[in-house]
Amino acid sequence: MNVLVQKFGGTSVAGAERIRAVAERVARNRAKGRGIVVVVSAMGHTTDELIALARSVASDPDPREMDLLLSTGETVSATLLAMALRDINCSAVSLTAAQAGIRTNRAFSRALITNIHTERLERELAAGKVAIVTGFQGITEDADITTLGRGGSDTTAVALACALHAERCEIYTDVEGIFTTDPRVVPEARCVSHIAYEEMLELAQQGARVMHPRAVELGQVYNMPIVVRSSFTEAPGTLIGPGDTVEIQQRVQGIAHDTDVAKISLAGVPDRPGIARSLFAPLAEAGVNVDVIVQTASFEGVTDMSFTVGRGDLDRAVKLVQPVAAEIKAAKLASAPDLAKVSIVGTGMLSQPGYAARMFAILADVGINIDMITTSDIRITCIISASQTEEAVNALHAAFELDQE
Amino acid sequence: MNVLVQKFGGTSVAGAERIRAVAERVARNRAKGRGIVVVVSAMGHTTDELIALARSVASDPDPREMDLLLSTGETVSATLLAMALRDINCSAVSLTAAQAGIRTNRAFSRALITNIHTERLERELAAGKVAIVTGFQGITEDADITTLGRGGSDTTAVALACALHAERCEIYTDVEGIFTTDPRVVPEARCVSHIAYEEMLELAQQGARVMHPRAVELGQVYNMPIVVRSSFTEAPGTLIGPGDTVEIQQRVQGIAHDTDVAKISLAGVPDRPGIARSLFAPLAEAGVNVDVIVQTASFEGVTDMSFTVGRGDLDRAVKLVQPVAAEIKAAKLASAPDLAKVSIVGTGMLSQPGYAARMFAILADVGINIDMITTSDIRITCIISASQTEEAVNALHAAFELDQE
Repeated sequence: MNVLVQKFGGTSVAGAERIRAVAERVARNRAKGRGIVVVVSAMGHTTDELIALARSVASDPDPREMDLLLSTGETVSATLLAMALRDINCSAVSLTAAQAGIRTNRAFSRALITNIHTERLERELAAGKVAIVTGFQGITEDADITTLGRGGSDTTAVALACALHAERCEIYTDVEGIFTTDPRVVPEARCVSHIAYEEMLELAQQGARVMHPRAVELGQVYNMPIVVRSSFTEAPGTLIGPGDTVEIQQRVQGIAHDTDVAKISLAGVPDRPGIARSLFAPLAEAGVNVDVIVQTASFEGVTDMSFTVGRGDLDRAVKLVQPVAAEIKAAKLASAPDLAKVSIVGTGMLSQPGYAARMFAILADVGINIDMITTSDIRITCIISASQTEEAVNALHAAFELDQE
Repeated sequence: MNVLVQKFGGTSVAGAERIRAVAERVARNRAKGRGIVVVVSAMGHTTDELIALARSVASDPDPREMDLLLSTGETVSATLLAMALRDINCSAVSLTAAQAGIRTNRAFSRALITNIHTERLERELAAGKVAIVTGFQGITEDADITTLGRGGSDTTAVALACALHAERCEIYTDVEGIFTTDPRVVPEARCVSHIAYEEMLELAQQGARVMHPRAVELGQVYNMPIVVRSSFTEAPGTLIGPGDTVEIQQRVQGIAHDTDVAKISLAGVPDRPGIARSLFAPLAEAGVNVDVIVQTASFEGVTDMSFTVGRGDLDRAVKLVQPVAAEIKAAKLASAPDLAKVSIVGTGMLSQPGYAARMFAILADVGINIDMITTSDIRITCIISASQTEEAVNALHAAFELDQE
């Protein structure tokens, strides 16, 4: 049987009316003869509410207990969707991650899927039922419930699609697909029909929040076609797949931005082995996520070093870096809280030089100063002032003609 | 290790503050060196809210889905209590019914416990942890989640106490124990220190809502001492145990009442085999619970028959009985919606005659007419007008001197 995996996010199942709308949609797909596996997230803000509840009884809730608590959110939406489907005469059964055989390691709150035992799922599909699986969670060998971390429902959906050799995995969300950039910033932003796994990964990592990078990576490894589309319209959405159209496209595919960027700079750092380790090890231990790191060339045995962290981590990071800076006798320590990251992404950049130069020129033309630069094979990222983000994204979108097919 | 099973109902865990109070209480008990298993219900009105949610997506929610949905309520309170215990440095782990090995049959919404696999529970207790088990639920052999029906958390607690050979099972609730009668009706009502299983069963079945009769029965079968006490005070509560003090007591132990009683009467029913079946089979099929049935002696080949149902079932019951009444040519069909049941209960009545006569006299003295009478070995029940319930209970409580030790 051809199997289709369809994931519906929290917004799509927020409330009885939306759940019934999702049921109608799933039933229509089922009527076309395919086996349907639906993966659901918790309704609306359920997860945040459960976290608040946990914090009200314990200052630092135990991760194992937290995972079991949070898992109830998806169980509620899965059972409600199964009821709604049966109510319109579409045979359906909800399955918890335990029942769906989604095995994980014991890393509570950020568990990794180790295996999927698909026997029960296949039995329900063979019986003609729509199987509704709770996203975002799994079960350990000891029968403890785990969660995969935020955005984990996308990962559940893609993993199930791979395990069941599904035709494709559809991610239903509250936008029409993957846009060339955030349409709230650039009204001319266009929904693209295809995008390569690599491009989607870079966009997701650089601030585009539609799709979880971990799920994209899983799709890429197993070559599983992923479609991102709206749960409220019939628009076809965006197909994330192998980048076999790279040679033809050779262009920028999308622009990501992220305004949650703060910078710490050290001037006059002695350029000797071990300095970077002594600087970043305390940050890693404290769980501070360091994003972009830039070090300039050494000049007279000293170098300058800058790196970015999330704005909420800045104060903590500065406190951790101060004693190290004193110890290594850095000349100066400075920080800036209000920066942003703007990235252009496209596999076309792989074989075509000059994109970096064009990006810098476009930003210079509108008077935007570039603070830091970092690149990958298919991405160029500039750190700029947060207040100029919209202007930068609009200028790049227009100059790279992303509004045109 | 001496094990104590403690059950906390929905009121006891309604809100963060109460959960922390329960945690303090459990931690104090744990500090005395006993192994503690806690059974929790869902917080406050959670179960009702989940049922309302289910009804908002489906007119007749599937029982399997409903049970999985409702099971999330206890999972939330169990994990929160485990977090609260760990927060005050009391080692604890929450266990779903699946994790606690509570096996049931597949009768969704009213499942029966078939077996309890206590391995994991014993392992957690041996590791010094307080084990917090979700009440009211179980798991089938096929790993489907079931619920035991309303009041099922008491049954979970007593069943676990029996399986673990616990010292006793404590049921924490919002009252101080078992009262001679409802203290809201009779201000002189007294909390009794001991009561026999049989007496508690009769009281529970006749309208006293503190303890679920099914749990009492289980305790009686396994001879498990059950203590009912307040979760808000240190009062010792009531011990429900074997009735070995029967011979000494020889008195009425409690008075139960239930004002949710409606009556259907048939006059001139032909007295021949099969009539009762043709009358009650349709009611049973429709799920109408018939409580008291009274049939008078046959006179000239016809008899009168009366029975009671819950007030909410009256209209439906009358509609079901009408065609049968016509078919069997009953002379008259009448119904009354506003009756009540008043019962006196005590194992002392087993060996002492005259209690029935005294009860009728007491009611007559205050001008209360008795509509129907039904008795068991240790109980006498009168059906009276609902408007006279308080008067009847007060008169009986005073005349049988239940306010005195």
